[in-house]
Amino acid sequence: MELSALQRVRYTYKPKLPGSLSRPVTEIAVQLGNPTESISDQDALKARFKETYGKPLAAFVPGRNETISRRLSVGVILSGGQAPGGHNVIAGLYDGLKKGNPGSKLFGLLGGPSGLIDNKSVEITGPMMDAYRNTGGFDMIGSGRTKIESPEQFASSLETAKKLGLDAVVIIGGDDSNTNAALLAEYFLSRGSNIQVIGCPKTIDGDLKNENIEISFGFDTAVKTYSELIGNIERDANSAKKYWHFIKLMGRSASHIALECALQTQPNICFISEEVEAKKLSLGQVVDQICNSVVKRADNKENFGVVLIPEGLVEFIPEMKKLIDELNDIMANKEKEFSEQGSFHAQTNWLVTQLSDPSGYLFKSLPEEIAKELLMDRDPHGNVQVSRIETEKLLMGMTESKLRDLKKTGTYKGKFSALGHFFGYEGRCAFPTNFDADYCYSLGFSAFVLIASGLTGYLSSVKNLVAPADQWIAGGVPLTMMMNMEHRHGADKPVIRKALVELDGKPFKAFAAERETWSVKTSFVYPGSIQYYGPAEICDQPTITLKLEKL
Amino acid sequence: MELSALQRVRYTYKPKLPGSLSRPVTEIAVQLGNPTESISDQDALKARFKETYGKPLAAFVPGRNETISRRLSVGVILSGGQAPGGHNVIAGLYDGLKKGNPGSKLFGLLGGPSGLIDNKSVEITGPMMDAYRNTGGFDMIGSGRTKIESPEQFASSLETAKKLGLDAVVIIGGDDSNTNAALLAEYFLSRGSNIQVIGCPKTIDGDLKNENIEISFGFDTAVKTYSELIGNIERDANSAKKYWHFIKLMGRSASHIALECALQTQPNICFISEEVEAKKLSLGQVVDQICNSVVKRADNKENFGVVLIPEGLVEFIPEMKKLIDELNDIMANKEKEFSEQGSFHAQTNWLVTQLSDPSGYLFKSLPEEIAKELLMDRDPHGNVQVSRIETEKLLMGMTESKLRDLKKTGTYKGKFSALGHFFGYEGRCAFPTNFDADYCYSLGFSAFVLIASGLTGYLSSVKNLVAPADQWIAGGVPLTMMMNMEHRHGADKPVIRKALVELDGKPFKAFAAERETWSVKTSFVYPGSIQYYGPAEICDQPTITLKLEKL
Repeated sequence: MELSALQRVRYTYKPKLPGSLSRPVTEIAVQLGNPTESISDQDALKARFKETYGKPLAAFVPGRNETISRRLSVGVILSGGQAPGGHNVIAGLYDGLKKGNPGSKLFGLLGGPSGLIDNKSVEITGPMMDAYRNTGGFDMIGSGRTKIESPEQFASSLETAKKLGLDAVVIIGGDDSNTNAALLAEYFLSRGSNIQVIGCPKTIDGDLKNENIEISFGFDTAVKTYSELIGNIERDANSAKKYWHFIKLMGRSASHIALECALQTQPNICFISEEVEAKKLSLGQVVDQICNSVVKRADNKENFGVVLIPEGLVEFIPEMKKLIDELNDIMANKEKEFSEQGSFHAQTNWLVTQLSDPSGYLFKSLPEEIAKELLMDRDPHGNVQVSRIETEKLLMGMTESKLRDLKKTGTYKGKFSALGHFFGYEGRCAFPTNFDADYCYSLGFSAFVLIASGLTGYLSSVKNLVAPADQWIAGGVPLTMMMNMEHRHGADKPVIRKALVELDGKPFKAFAAERETWSVKTSFVYPGSIQYYGPAEICDQPTITLKLEKL
Repeated sequence: MELSALQRVRYTYKPKLPGSLSRPVTEIAVQLGNPTESISDQDALKARFKETYGKPLAAFVPGRNETISRRLSVGVILSGGQAPGGHNVIAGLYDGLKKGNPGSKLFGLLGGPSGLIDNKSVEITGPMMDAYRNTGGFDMIGSGRTKIESPEQFASSLETAKKLGLDAVVIIGGDDSNTNAALLAEYFLSRGSNIQVIGCPKTIDGDLKNENIEISFGFDTAVKTYSELIGNIERDANSAKKYWHFIKLMGRSASHIALECALQTQPNICFISEEVEAKKLSLGQVVDQICNSVVKRADNKENFGVVLIPEGLVEFIPEMKKLIDELNDIMANKEKEFSEQGSFHAQTNWLVTQLSDPSGYLFKSLPEEIAKELLMDRDPHGNVQVSRIETEKLLMGMTESKLRDLKKTGTYKGKFSALGHFFGYEGRCAFPTNFDADYCYSLGFSAFVLIASGLTGYLSSVKNLVAPADQWIAGGVPLTMMMNMEHRHGADKPVIRKALVELDGKPFKAFAAERETWSVKTSFVYPGSIQYYGPAEICDQPTITLKLEKL
C-alpha cells in the first residue's frame, strides 16, 4: 500500500504517557478504593451484576506489581462507528503487553464484536502494529455494530475466548459497546471463567462522559476537522458576501459536536438539540431564529452567514418527533392502504386524514422533497430513517419561504441565497490529533495494566486531560458505576447513561453568552487544519469544551 | 475579531522569496528579451492591442535599477472566486513597494473590479496588512465578478485611477480577469495615460497555465484540502466497508482538481471531463465504468469505494450537453407553453414531444429529482444552472438502478449503498500552504518590480516551482503572449486560453496507467491535513501534477 508523506512521518511520533505509566511496568501498582455504587437503580443493577457490581475505583501508584509480568493473551475489539485514535488504543495495549512480557500476545478480533462471536481473529505482530501507529480509521482489524445479546452469542463469545486462550478481552466502543463489555464481564464470571473484560471510551459524539471519564476519544480530532471546514466556509462567506451556508454536523443524540464547533468558529447560528427539546421549540420557531439573524444582518448589508445544525435536530423538535412517530405507526399498520395511493399528492392527502390535526398541518407545510424523504427509505423496522432527512435543506427551504413573507411586509430587504453541507464522514477517520494520539495510547496502556492486575468489568480511564500529558491520571472505573436502568424496546435494561449537553454546564453557558452577538455581528474564527508539529499552542490544545469543563 | 491559535502563529511566518528578489531592491534589474507573439490569431490580436501587443519577456537579473525607488501609488484588485494566498500577493506587493520607497502607497479597490469602476477603495496600512498575512480568504478588500466591459466602465476605471493618483493597477484573477487586465492596459495607453496594469495568476481550478505560468495560485492549497477530506473518507470507507462515496469536486471547465486529488488519494474511480468529451462517452457508459468497478470489487467482498466526479462533468457528456442546449432553447422560446403544463408528469410528456428523440429518451431516463433540477432554478439568461445539478446523485441513482439490473442477470451479487458529497467552498479560503504563501508573496513582490520598472500589460510570473524557493525564477510575461481569439456570445473576442487537462500530458498518463488497478484493488492513500510546520516532506511539497509536469 502506498503511503502519504504524513503517514510515514506520523509512524515515528512517540505518544506521551501519564507519569504513572511511564515507570518500568513492574513498578506500577494498582491501588483500589472503596466499593462504588451505580448512578441510580442500585438494587436492580446489583441483582443484574451479581459478580461485578460495585467494584472499587482503581488508581495506579508507584509500587511493586508482582503479576504484571505474567505472560498474557488478550483479544481486542473495535466496536461501532470509527473514531480517530482507535489504532493507538491498540498500540498502547500492545506495547504494554510486550513490556510486561515479550511472550504476551494480542489478537485482533475482526469486524467488531462479531469477530468474537464467530471466532475471526488475527494475531497482531510488531510490523502490523507499526503500520497503524498514529493513523486514523479502524481498518487495522475492522469494526462492526453487532451487539452480543442472545444467550447463543454470549456462549459463542466465551467459546472463542477459550479457544484463543485469551486472558482478557478489550472492547473499544461507545456507551452501548461498553454496556456490552459490562454484560460480558459478568457473563464470563457467572460461567466460572476468569477471562477479564476491559472497556475503552470511544465516540466522536462526545456523549460518553461522566465524572470519571472526561471525554471519549476521537471527539477532539473530529471536532477539529469539522471546525477547520466550518472556518474555511466562514471565511469564504465573509469574502464572497453572498451565501448563507447551512451546515449539518454528525451527532444524532447529543449536540456536543455542534457546540464545540460553535465555540471554535463562532458562527451566526448554532442549534443545540437539547435546548430545542427543553424549550419545546416548534419548527417554525427554529426557522424564526434563523430569519431574525438573516434580517438583522441584512440591515447591516451582510447578506451572508453560517448556521450549524446537529444531525439529530428534527427528532428533538417535539412536533416533528410526534409527526415521525405517527408516520411510523401508520406505515406499520396501514402499509397496504398507503401503497395503494397512486401519486405523492394522493399519498399526502390520504396521510393527512390519518394523522392528528397538528401533525397533518405540519406535514403539509414541509417542503415537498423533505415530505418525500419522510415517506421513503424506511429502515428494516419500518421506521423513518431520520439520518437521511436533509435537515439543512428543510431549514433552507423554510427560511427562504419565511423571508419571502417578511419581504412582502417590508421588514426584510436583503438577498438570500443558501448552500447546504453535511460533515460527518470527513472527521471520523482523520489522523488523530496529538491529543487523541496520546490519550488513546494511554487508554490502551492503562487497559493493559488493569488486565495484568487481574481486574474485570472496568473502563480504562485517563483524567486531568487539560494538564500536560505527564500529569494525566490513569486508572480504571468499574463499568457498573456509570450505569442505570432504562426502558428500551419494551423492557428495562442496564445501560451506561448517555451524556447530553447540559444546559447549565459551562460550555453551553459560554456559547449562550455570546450567541446574540454572533447572530448579528460577523465574529467568525478560522481554526485552520489540524497541526501535528510546531508550537504547542497550535498542536497540543484540548477542546474548548474540555477546558471549560475542567479549568 | 477573535483569532485562532493558527492564525496568530501564521502571522509570524516569513514567506520565502526567489533569490533574484532577495537582493536589495535597487540591485534588481529587469532584462527584456525579444518581442513575443500570441499563441495564435497574431494579426487580429496585433490589431486589437496596438499599444501592448508583442512585448518582450521580462527577467530579473542582478544590476542597478534606477527607477525602483520612485514613490509609487498602486491599486490592487481581487477578482473572481476566492483562492488561498490572495492576501499574500497583496503582502508581497505591499512589502516591495515599501522597500522601494517608504512613501509609496497601496490602495485596495473594494469588492473586485467594481471598486475601480465605482471608486471604492481603502489605503492599506501596515497594521491592516499584518492582520492578513498568510491567511486565506479575500476578506481584506473583498472580491467580485464584475467585468470591465462597457466603454463607460473603462472610462470610469481610468477616472478612478487618476483620482487616486495611481501609477499602476494590479489585478489578481483568473483567465477572464487577466484578459480584462490586458484590455485595461491597452485602454489606458490608448487614452494617453501611463497608468500601468499588471496581472497575477489566480484560480483554484488550475486552468490558467502555460509554458510561462506553471500553475495559478490557490490550486495547491485547495487540492490538498480536498485530498485531506477524500483520504479521510477513503479510510472511513475502508474501515466501515459498507458505503460507496460519490464525491463531486469543484472545477467546472477543467478537471485539474479531480486529477490531482486522484493522484493524491488513489480512489477507485475518477472521471476527467476532458477525456469523457474526447471519447464522446454517453451517460450510460459513464455509469457502466462505475458499475464495472462495483461488480469486480463485490467479487472481492469489497462492497465499498470512492468515486471522484468533476463538477462540470455533465456538460462534457455530449448527449447531456445536447439535452441541456435543447432544454435551454425550449424554455427560452416556449416558456409560456411549458408553464401551462400542470404537473411535473405533464411537463415531462410535453417536453418529450419538443425534444429530439435521443434527448427525449435521455430525459425520461434521468432520475426524477435530476430531471426536476434541469427544469427549475434557471439563471438570469434562462439557462439551466449546471452547477446546481447534483451530478453525484445522478450517478448514484443510475448506478443503483443499473446494479439492480445486473443483479437480476446474476452478474452482480454484492450490496450497494451510496453517499454523496460535494467539496468546493471548503478549500477556497483555507490558510495557504507554505507553497502558496511563498508563491503568492513572490508573485506580489514580482508585480512590484514590474511596476517600478515601468512595464504594463504583463502577468507576474514565478517559475521553476518544483525547486526550493530560492531557486524560483521570477519575471513578467506579456499578457498578449497567452491570448487567442475565441467566439463568445456571438463575437470574436481576445481571451487568454484556458488550460484543460491534456490527455497526452504526464499527470493524466500517470493516472491512466494506474486506474485499472485502483478500480478493483483498494489502493487508497491518506494525505491527512495540510501541515505548516515540521519536516519539509510534509509541509513544503508542490502538487503531484506540478512535479510530473516539471520534473
